[in-house]
Amino acid sequence: MRVAVDAMGGDHAPLEVVRGAIRALTEEAELNVVLVGREAEIRVEIEAAKAEAEFPAVGERLSIVHAEQVVGCDENPLEALRKKKDNSIVKSFGLVAEGHADAVVSAGNTGAVVGAATLIWRMIPGIRRAGIAVAVGTKDQHTVLVDVGANVHCKPIHLLHYGIMASIFAELALGHKNPKVALLNIGAEEAKGNPLVKETMQLLTKAPLNFIGSVEGNDIFDHRADVVVCEGFVGNVMLKVSEGLSATLHARFEDIVGKIVKTHPSPALAEAIADFRRATDYAEIGGAPLLGVNGTCLICHGRSDRRALGNAMKLAGRFVKANVVQTIQEGVAAHQEGES
Amino acid sequence: MRVAVDAMGGDHAPLEVVRGAIRALTEEAELNVVLVGREAEIRVEIEAAKAEAEFPAVGERLSIVHAEQVVGCDENPLEALRKKKDNSIVKSFGLVAEGHADAVVSAGNTGAVVGAATLIWRMIPGIRRAGIAVAVGTKDQHTVLVDVGANVHCKPIHLLHYGIMASIFAELALGHKNPKVALLNIGAEEAKGNPLVKETMQLLTKAPLNFIGSVEGNDIFDHRADVVVCEGFVGNVMLKVSEGLSATLHARFEDIVGKIVKTHPSPALAEAIADFRRATDYAEIGGAPLLGVNGTCLICHGRSDRRALGNAMKLAGRFVKANVVQTIQEGVAAHQEGES
Repeated sequence: MRVAVDAMGGDHAPLEVVRGAIRALTEEAELNVVLVGREAEIRVEIEAAKAEAEFPAVGERLSIVHAEQVVGCDENPLEALRKKKDNSIVKSFGLVAEGHADAVVSAGNTGAVVGAATLIWRMIPGIRRAGIAVAVGTKDQHTVLVDVGANVHCKPIHLLHYGIMASIFAELALGHKNPKVALLNIGAEEAKGNPLVKETMQLLTKAPLNFIGSVEGNDIFDHRADVVVCEGFVGNVMLKVSEGLSATLHARFEDIVGKIVKTHPSPALAEAIADFRRATDYAEIGGAPLLGVNGTCLICHGRSDRRALGNAMKLAGRFVKANVVQTIQEGVAAHQEGES
Repeated sequence: MRVAVDAMGGDHAPLEVVRGAIRALTEEAELNVVLVGREAEIRVEIEAAKAEAEFPAVGERLSIVHAEQVVGCDENPLEALRKKKDNSIVKSFGLVAEGHADAVVSAGNTGAVVGAATLIWRMIPGIRRAGIAVAVGTKDQHTVLVDVGANVHCKPIHLLHYGIMASIFAELALGHKNPKVALLNIGAEEAKGNPLVKETMQLLTKAPLNFIGSVEGNDIFDHRADVVVCEGFVGNVMLKVSEGLSATLHARFEDIVGKIVKTHPSPALAEAIADFRRATDYAEIGGAPLLGVNGTCLICHGRSDRRALGNAMKLAGRFVKANVVQTIQEGVAAHQEGES
């Protein structure tokens, strides 16, 4: 599996992207990484990594493709794509389109990534809008939220497609058998919800899915469902509220309880503190697939570190190996035949 | 201040409502509580409380008004209000309408409470839709979210009014000076957000408010704003995600770290654990005001216990004393004069 990685995307690029690539290549022997971006800057980081002697024998598995321009994270996405023809995002998608790579990973400007994927790869036949699916939870148990911000003008048919695509993602890439799919709502009563939710409920009920009905916000972290479908604005708010609250709680924990290990050394306490950190490490699995476009693309948080970026590259490899995009294409085609 | 309390509302009614009333009356000498509901059932709970000898000398400050019917929390709100004429919710609002009480507190069916308030009290002149405002955060610092579920068909003018009303609530009842008001959005870029957000942004920018622009979901718990305005579906999801995640994290904390005090007694550790619990106790302040209706109404979570219910009754008293509803009426009238 050859992954084209946007080396210039993210708050800590290219440093963390290069280090992430080295981690991924070390941990996953079948992986190849093409770093896309300003070659000189990328080489500096590779040399720095080599100087630290942590550089493994990745040989030919790591390569560089030069792209001169960088899309900033606050730039207007479509304007940037129009003005900066030779940017690292567009070039990454181009490598896949030309058959030189199998997947793209980027922590860059999300709007530009979604725009480039849609323009260069096009959509899977039958799918109208792309959606970003994020797997949230602890290491042991994930719930996939979709969409978390690609589409703020959702129609019921978009949400139906998100459910079908995310169900395949959850099954093939995350290992959930016959994933339970739910629709995010604000109450169990049929009378509740807005028109979008009510119409989507009809579609999901008839779809070839293990659809369990609606869930509320508080059900997400109870893992009531494997896939939760919602429109992009709500999904984005939900994701960021979770991140913000989790970060706040963990910061307080470190301030108040975490530092007590230093003044009161105790193996049992140290172990309990480490256990709590592990059990409540709501780290994303590294990358969020952009579902609906005709290829494998994983979007990373702008503030991703080497661990998250490396995990995303490994996940991209699993995606390709498990034929997720092809299975989605077949699933959508089968569903449409059933409809007509 | 005389507060009419729906004694039959909530998962633990009338037990927790009666105990909450006793707490509030004990802690707040100026308060009077009228318990509205099935008199016999309420008396049983009062006698039980007396038998436990925790009953203070509240005398005439606690009274009962009988209502025969109860609206279930899963009933269709408007149907229930139509069929059950003599229910505890309607009777509570009636007591205020007739001048026998100054405010209503209910943990019952939210839709029925909003419906009864709107039908019996009517709206404040100029306000079109009621919104529920919840103060979230720790004891020291609250952020008011509005709306969290009364209105899932929000128009920009509704959100503008929520901003104006919640700002007055935050100032008079929560003590925030010149409250910072923000609009919930999914990115700092102007290009982001949906049409509702973009139009509301225009209105809030021109309003007589300390409007600081947009905030994202992760800014809520950083207390970037004192008031965050959003439409009811998003607000409800946000609130419930916060509740769910916070409950999950705290449960893990108690499981893993909290119990270590028993096996490793240490005053410093016990203190740190208690500090963490206090610092991350994201308890609501007890009741969420229903803003926009012509009177003081506080809505409580269905699962509220005696502490939350008692706090809501005390908050209702503060609301009445601080003339919140009257100030909102004047604020809305002044804003409308400025507009015309």
